[in-house]
Amino acid sequence: MSRWRIDLEYDGRDFAGWQAQPNTRTVQGVLESAVEAVFQVPARVHGAGRTDSGVSARQQVACFNHAVERPARAVMHGLNRFLPDDVVVLAAREVPKAFHPRHSPHHKVYCYSWLVRTARPVLARGRCWHSRADLDVAAMHEAVAPLQGTHDMSSFRATGCSSAHPVRTILHASVTSRGPWVELRLVGTGFLRHQVRIVSGTLMDVGLGRRPIAHMAEVLAARDRSAAGRTAPAEGLMLEEIVYDDEP
Amino acid sequence: MSRWRIDLEYDGRDFAGWQAQPNTRTVQGVLESAVEAVFQVPARVHGAGRTDSGVSARQQVACFNHAVERPARAVMHGLNRFLPDDVVVLAAREVPKAFHPRHSPHHKVYCYSWLVRTARPVLARGRCWHSRADLDVAAMHEAVAPLQGTHDMSSFRATGCSSAHPVRTILHASVTSRGPWVELRLVGTGFLRHQVRIVSGTLMDVGLGRRPIAHMAEVLAARDRSAAGRTAPAEGLMLEEIVYDDEP
Repeated sequence: MSRWRIDLEYDGRDFAGWQAQPNTRTVQGVLESAVEAVFQVPARVHGAGRTDSGVSARQQVACFNHAVERPARAVMHGLNRFLPDDVVVLAAREVPKAFHPRHSPHHKVYCYSWLVRTARPVLARGRCWHSRADLDVAAMHEAVAPLQGTHDMSSFRATGCSSAHPVRTILHASVTSRGPWVELRLVGTGFLRHQVRIVSGTLMDVGLGRRPIAHMAEVLAARDRSAAGRTAPAEGLMLEEIVYDDEP
Repeated sequence: MSRWRIDLEYDGRDFAGWQAQPNTRTVQGVLESAVEAVFQVPARVHGAGRTDSGVSARQQVACFNHAVERPARAVMHGLNRFLPDDVVVLAAREVPKAFHPRHSPHHKVYCYSWLVRTARPVLARGRCWHSRADLDVAAMHEAVAPLQGTHDMSSFRATGCSSAHPVRTILHASVTSRGPWVELRLVGTGFLRHQVRIVSGTLMDVGLGRRPIAHMAEVLAARDRSAAGRTAPAEGLMLEEIVYDDEP
C-alpha cells in the first residue's frame, strides 16, 4: 500500500467547492474519478482543507492510498490526463503512512483580493471582490494586526462550522495594495469555516470608513458571530499555499 | 459633434481579435453594437491597434465620434451596460477632433508571458505560453537588448502586414522572471503585424539553448522573416498599456 500526496492548482469558478457531493461538480469528485480512471480501483482523496464553492487554489494538498506501485511522474501525468482543464496536479510524491494533509503540522496561506476601480473586473472576473469605493489600506492593515496570535475566533466562525473548538493561531496578517488591487494575506495553522471571508467582510467596513480601526479587535473580543460583518464573496478568496513542517 | 476616447480592458480568449468582421465575435464589433445601443445611431469605433485573435488587453484605447452631448460618466456607464462580461470601458473622455488613437504620438507596452513548469496552466490557462523546459532568462534578456532603438524590423514582420514601411522604434526591451513566470516586456512607438509574437518565438529558441545569445541581433540584421523563429501563440500576449504624449 502506497500513500500519495498530490499538490493541486484549481480554478474554483465552475466547482461547487472541494467536498464530493452526489450530482455536483466538486474538486474532490473529479480527483476521485481521475484516480479511479488511472488505477482502475476507486480511492477516497482527502484534502488539507475544504474550499468553498467558487474559491480557487494555487496550491491545495491532498492524499490517497493505493495498492499499485507507480513512479511519481506516472501518477502525476496519469491523473492530469483524466482531469478537466480547471484542475491540475502540480506534483505527486509518496509520503509516510502517518501523513495526513489536514492533521499533519503545517501552516496555510490564504489571500483575499479586492479590485478597487469604477469599472467591473474583466481579466480578474470571478477572482476578486469589486469595490467602486476607495479602501483605506493603511487602516485595514492596522485593524487586522490584533488577529495575530492564538485567539478564540468565534466571531469569525460560520454557523454550521464543524470544528470542535474555536481557537486558532494566526501567524501573520497584513493588508497591502498594488495599483487598483488590495490584498489581505493571512497565514495560520488552521482556519474555521468561512473565517477568512468573515475577516475580509468585517475588514472592508474598516476600509470603507464605516468602522474605526479598533473595530476588528472589538469584534475578536466579542466572540460572537453577530459582532462581525458580512461574509465576503467566495470569489475573492485564494488558497495560496500549504507548508508542512518536514519541508525545506 | 463630440469625439470620445475610451480606454478598454478585454479578455481576448473568446474574441476573434479586434477588427470587426461579419458573423464573427470581435472587440470592435461588440463595442460598435454598444455605441449604437447607447446613442441609438451607429458609429465606427477606431482602435489604437488591432490585436490578434486570443490576445487580451489591460488597456486598449479607441475613439468614436457622436453628435449627442453626454457627460463622460454617462458614456462609460452606458457602454458598460451593453458590453458582455469579457470587455469593459475603464474610462471615457472627450478629446480634440485631431486625436486619433493610432496616429497621435504615443508608445505602447506589450508583455509576452511564459509559464515554465511541468503541469499545464490552470489559473492562467489561455493567458500564457506553457514551457515544460527551463528557459535561460539571463540569455533571453541579453539577446533581446539589440532590438532597442530604431531598426528595419522586416525579420519580425508577418507576411500580409499592411504597414507602408518596416522601420519601428523600440524604447525598451527586457526579459524578467518571477517564480515560474518569464515575461518579455517591449515598449515601442508602434509595432508591425505579429512583431511581438515573432520576437517571442525567436527569443524562446535562445531561452531553450537552441540558439546563441547573438541570434536575435543576427535575425534583426537579416531583414528577412525566414531568419526568425516561429510566431509565438497569441494567448501569451497582453497589450498592457498605451501612453499618449499629452498625458501626465
